[in-house]
Amino acid sequence: MINIGICGYGNLGRGIEKAIKLAPDMNLVGVFTRRNPENVKLASNAKAYHIDDLVKFKDKIDVLVLCGGSATDLPTQTPELVKMFNVVDSFDTHAKIYEHFGNVDKNAIGSKKTAIISTGWDPGMFSLNRIYMEAILPNGKDYTFWGKGVSQGHSDAIRRIPGVKDARQYTIPKEEALNLVRSGANPNLSVRDKHLRDCYVVLEDDADAEYVRQAITTMPNYFADYDTFVNFISEEELQRNHKGIPHGGFVIRTGETSDGIRHRIEYSLQLDSNPEFTSSVMLAYARACYRLNQEGSYGCKTVYDVAPKYLSLRSYDDLLKSIL
Amino acid sequence: MINIGICGYGNLGRGIEKAIKLAPDMNLVGVFTRRNPENVKLASNAKAYHIDDLVKFKDKIDVLVLCGGSATDLPTQTPELVKMFNVVDSFDTHAKIYEHFGNVDKNAIGSKKTAIISTGWDPGMFSLNRIYMEAILPNGKDYTFWGKGVSQGHSDAIRRIPGVKDARQYTIPKEEALNLVRSGANPNLSVRDKHLRDCYVVLEDDADAEYVRQAITTMPNYFADYDTFVNFISEEELQRNHKGIPHGGFVIRTGETSDGIRHRIEYSLQLDSNPEFTSSVMLAYARACYRLNQEGSYGCKTVYDVAPKYLSLRSYDDLLKSIL
Repeated sequence: MINIGICGYGNLGRGIEKAIKLAPDMNLVGVFTRRNPENVKLASNAKAYHIDDLVKFKDKIDVLVLCGGSATDLPTQTPELVKMFNVVDSFDTHAKIYEHFGNVDKNAIGSKKTAIISTGWDPGMFSLNRIYMEAILPNGKDYTFWGKGVSQGHSDAIRRIPGVKDARQYTIPKEEALNLVRSGANPNLSVRDKHLRDCYVVLEDDADAEYVRQAITTMPNYFADYDTFVNFISEEELQRNHKGIPHGGFVIRTGETSDGIRHRIEYSLQLDSNPEFTSSVMLAYARACYRLNQEGSYGCKTVYDVAPKYLSLRSYDDLLKSIL
Repeated sequence: MINIGICGYGNLGRGIEKAIKLAPDMNLVGVFTRRNPENVKLASNAKAYHIDDLVKFKDKIDVLVLCGGSATDLPTQTPELVKMFNVVDSFDTHAKIYEHFGNVDKNAIGSKKTAIISTGWDPGMFSLNRIYMEAILPNGKDYTFWGKGVSQGHSDAIRRIPGVKDARQYTIPKEEALNLVRSGANPNLSVRDKHLRDCYVVLEDDADAEYVRQAITTMPNYFADYDTFVNFISEEELQRNHKGIPHGGFVIRTGETSDGIRHRIEYSLQLDSNPEFTSSVMLAYARACYRLNQEGSYGCKTVYDVAPKYLSLRSYDDLLKSIL
């Protein structure tokens, strides 16, 4: 059995707790939180502990799954905790992965631990598809589309506008762009060409709807460069129709192997729950993390370093006989 | 530069020759054939040699790409040639992969060479998707569909019927089945439910069309269990409309991470040329084969043993910075 610890008990942490139930080779040792553990109600029979107690579990946890956020938690937590534990995280600030890797690798080498960073689906499964597609169709171009799905960051940005009580923002890939890419035309697409943004907003009683609409559609980086649609709805409707956190997306590459001989590779995800799916990917990489460490493969890794067999519950013989 | 040899000059061998042109890190040493090399016209500036001359290239070829067939060539060629060379093959008789692996592994360990067997797209890229999908969505079910594409084996089976001059058979996935799978219904599908078979047949002048139609549609294993459509066409039409060897297919898995929370993962290929795409995959694994051997990783491998980074032309830093 692989003994798993969960560090952080938000949506991701709860997703890991659920995913462990589907992993017959794993055992949940405990959930570690910054909150008062007595106030944390777990969905399983596991126990909650304060994060400061992690040190006592140094020899009881095989892999610690880090479920904090990429903005402030993981940049410090992953390099620190790899001094004591094998760790897996879902660090997803693409522009800072290289720096994060360096910080984690140095400490992991020192402690003879193994870290796998930036697991999940993007970075993660989408990254895998980008590398495989490019390697097998070098003369081509790939495109990543996200959605339809809830963007937490964009929803938060709307919530910060005065007069907004609650909001949900869906990122939606444009069908025309998807089809143009699938046709093999290798188009140059602006951000506006690829995705639209659909916003569902609950106003405070005294709010000025037109002000809010303007504030959203002109917001730099988040909305100004997109076709943005703003729908004002009641709190009841938001609760009824927009409570889920679905997501998904596409990686598509088209390319030629010789003159006029074209190929298309497409990978897509349609997810009822972004955090539950992300957690499931993380837990598969926790299995790989444990196995790599057992083999003496120390340091920081990414999905690019992990041979697929390390993720599977099947024996190697069974892989050859059943699914290869 | 990685020095590549091509063993066998049919459709796959010609595909490798084309793919090498897109690989700036590779050099084609020569094409090795059982035919008289003087009668073999290559599409590139490389030289053709008789296969018996391979032994003279023992130190000049880094990876020998085996382009023979799975029925009779590879079961003997791969275990024999790995005594002298790192090799990559596309052995695709799923039921015999385990046995083939054992035969190759023993000899590769002895010679300190590296073999990667059963590369291509199924086995190959589809196998990769099956293992990743299952590992991240254990509570689910996956389905593989092939087509629309030309099945060489089924086309050959039709050609062996008396009165048939030429034939082309397309395997076509049924849209209803695809959509049922995508819905998450996890249906039990018979072979008839999943695919239909569409046959284009050129008859000899004196042939009995009804006899041929019966012979096709009642042929055990190949056609009897399928909805099979037989179209008689002229030789001109076959040449005009059915000369290509397109193929493709889908791997789809749906599964739940908790009660009622469903996810779908779909991978699909649409290929203008089955052998050219297969060759492109093989050549990416030839790169990995070379690198693994350089690292001292000897023996027989499959796509499940190969960490994705070994396939890519990019440096590891570039992978982290650009596509992860």
